[in-house]
Amino acid sequence: MKKKKVLVTGCAGFIGSHLSEKLIAKGYFVTGIDNLSTGKLNFIKKLKLNKKFKFFKIDLFKQKNLYKYFKGNQIVFHMAANADVKNGFLNPKKDIEQNTIVTHKVLEAMRKNRIKRIIFASTGSIYGEPKIFPTKENYSFPIQTSLYGSSKLACEGLIQAYSYGFGFDSTIFRFVSIMGKRYSHGHLFDFYKQLLINKNHLNVLGNGLQKKSYLNIEDCINAMILTINRNKNPIEIYNLGTDRFITVNHSIKTILKILNLSPKIYYKGGDRGWIGDSPKIYLDTKKIRKIGWKPKKTIEESIKETIEFFNHNKWLFK
Amino acid sequence: MKKKKVLVTGCAGFIGSHLSEKLIAKGYFVTGIDNLSTGKLNFIKKLKLNKKFKFFKIDLFKQKNLYKYFKGNQIVFHMAANADVKNGFLNPKKDIEQNTIVTHKVLEAMRKNRIKRIIFASTGSIYGEPKIFPTKENYSFPIQTSLYGSSKLACEGLIQAYSYGFGFDSTIFRFVSIMGKRYSHGHLFDFYKQLLINKNHLNVLGNGLQKKSYLNIEDCINAMILTINRNKNPIEIYNLGTDRFITVNHSIKTILKILNLSPKIYYKGGDRGWIGDSPKIYLDTKKIRKIGWKPKKTIEESIKETIEFFNHNKWLFK
Repeated sequence: MKKKKVLVTGCAGFIGSHLSEKLIAKGYFVTGIDNLSTGKLNFIKKLKLNKKFKFFKIDLFKQKNLYKYFKGNQIVFHMAANADVKNGFLNPKKDIEQNTIVTHKVLEAMRKNRIKRIIFASTGSIYGEPKIFPTKENYSFPIQTSLYGSSKLACEGLIQAYSYGFGFDSTIFRFVSIMGKRYSHGHLFDFYKQLLINKNHLNVLGNGLQKKSYLNIEDCINAMILTINRNKNPIEIYNLGTDRFITVNHSIKTILKILNLSPKIYYKGGDRGWIGDSPKIYLDTKKIRKIGWKPKKTIEESIKETIEFFNHNKWLFK
Repeated sequence: MKKKKVLVTGCAGFIGSHLSEKLIAKGYFVTGIDNLSTGKLNFIKKLKLNKKFKFFKIDLFKQKNLYKYFKGNQIVFHMAANADVKNGFLNPKKDIEQNTIVTHKVLEAMRKNRIKRIIFASTGSIYGEPKIFPTKENYSFPIQTSLYGSSKLACEGLIQAYSYGFGFDSTIFRFVSIMGKRYSHGHLFDFYKQLLINKNHLNVLGNGLQKKSYLNIEDCINAMILTINRNKNPIEIYNLGTDRFITVNHSIKTILKILNLSPKIYYKGGDRGWIGDSPKIYLDTKKIRKIGWKPKKTIEESIKETIEFFNHNKWLFK
């Protein structure tokens, strides 16, 4: 069978770059798009040498006509997004522009090119502050607590409507936080950066008791690859995460042990790290497990892998 | 107590014009905004003579800076929207522009003016195709089946995030279809228009068995007025509707009886009127009833009122 041509938005990002590599390894031809705002050329250095990879540095929000960039592809992996949950309220336009409007532009570029298959990176933040754990995909109608979550909710709604109206076949993944090689934003990153500057002082947003689940990047990519050709329904929504959660304090303890450091810890800002920070994220992943996926790495292994990546990539913190 | 200054977007529309009149009658000073795309100057003819009413003909999507139009107001009733559910897939930009992006612009204009109270017109379409009736506000995480529903979902998410992040106090109403004086789009309108042209021929979208609930415009406005000063929580969501639903066929029977006509009826397009048409809309309204609201008019009274309005306003069909 002739291998398909696929497009990955956000191809130079943490998730997009791993996904592009895996797709190439599986025989796909990959067109990658990235505006390099948070994605890094360094992450696609090897990919760019591969004949099966084609890269366009364009900004999906600013670029007027996306038609030609999407042309000839059969599947779109839409990973590009503003993923800075924490600072949404400091720049209240960013999430709607980079997530909601860009997703609509991607869907329109697909429709005009008659591309009908989309795989989309959504988020567990979409559940707001759920009261039931682990939280299932059909949990009750959520209330949004962040502009990031609200923009991803808007994207999901658009993708679903395009599936109904234009016959798109869509898979939506709601991730917990992803860790591993090339992780380059989020609390582990912030902690490491602080400790690079002063190994005796660590500021923590919140009281350290927030409970979060994490998933390794490889397990995340494997779930997406698994579902490429097996959507039972035109719209499939899957939670992705490990079947554990840890506190921020446990995560700090693990990091400090690996780094062999014992800084003084300063907690800031009450029981939440920032406005919209969910005090507990822990997703029910029975649905994706039913079709044969399960995570291979534990949260602790992922933390270790991430810290090792930092140790070898200090350029990221400059 | 000094009466407040309030702003009504979509003030020349079906709902916005009634709401503006009621607010003036209650002593509020009303600033009305409308682009007159579907709103009608005729609906605000009397209002424009009132010193407590100020009208701006602007397009909230196109107008770059909304700051000055919102200045000095304490409450925003955001009623402006593209409400043409049926044709969303013919113009897939309209709902995201007129609903999602405009709502974000409204929220930004409020934030910059330190206006923190918003009352928003959402829709029962947001539940997609629910399986439980009557459908409650906390029904399970919905799947969108129309671009209209998906855009209103995006608006709700934005309003909720602004409530969390910026301390807004928001009331979101999810309406069934509203009927009564000034109703000027929707199936009653389409039926009447057809019968004006040919009283012996009526095309019906769908098989006539779709089940819909309706509410009278006065009952709708009363619910909004009731909640102005009594939000218990920073985000309150209320379904609005009567505690009955009727089939499209029953609605046709009622209309034909009032008009004393008996055309030949032609059903088109299977069990749904159009892609995204919900085969059943029937909302649970216990929550709003608990704070003292209940609808005064039956569905049949509303149909009668609407047909009488058409009989006296044939200019609408030209």
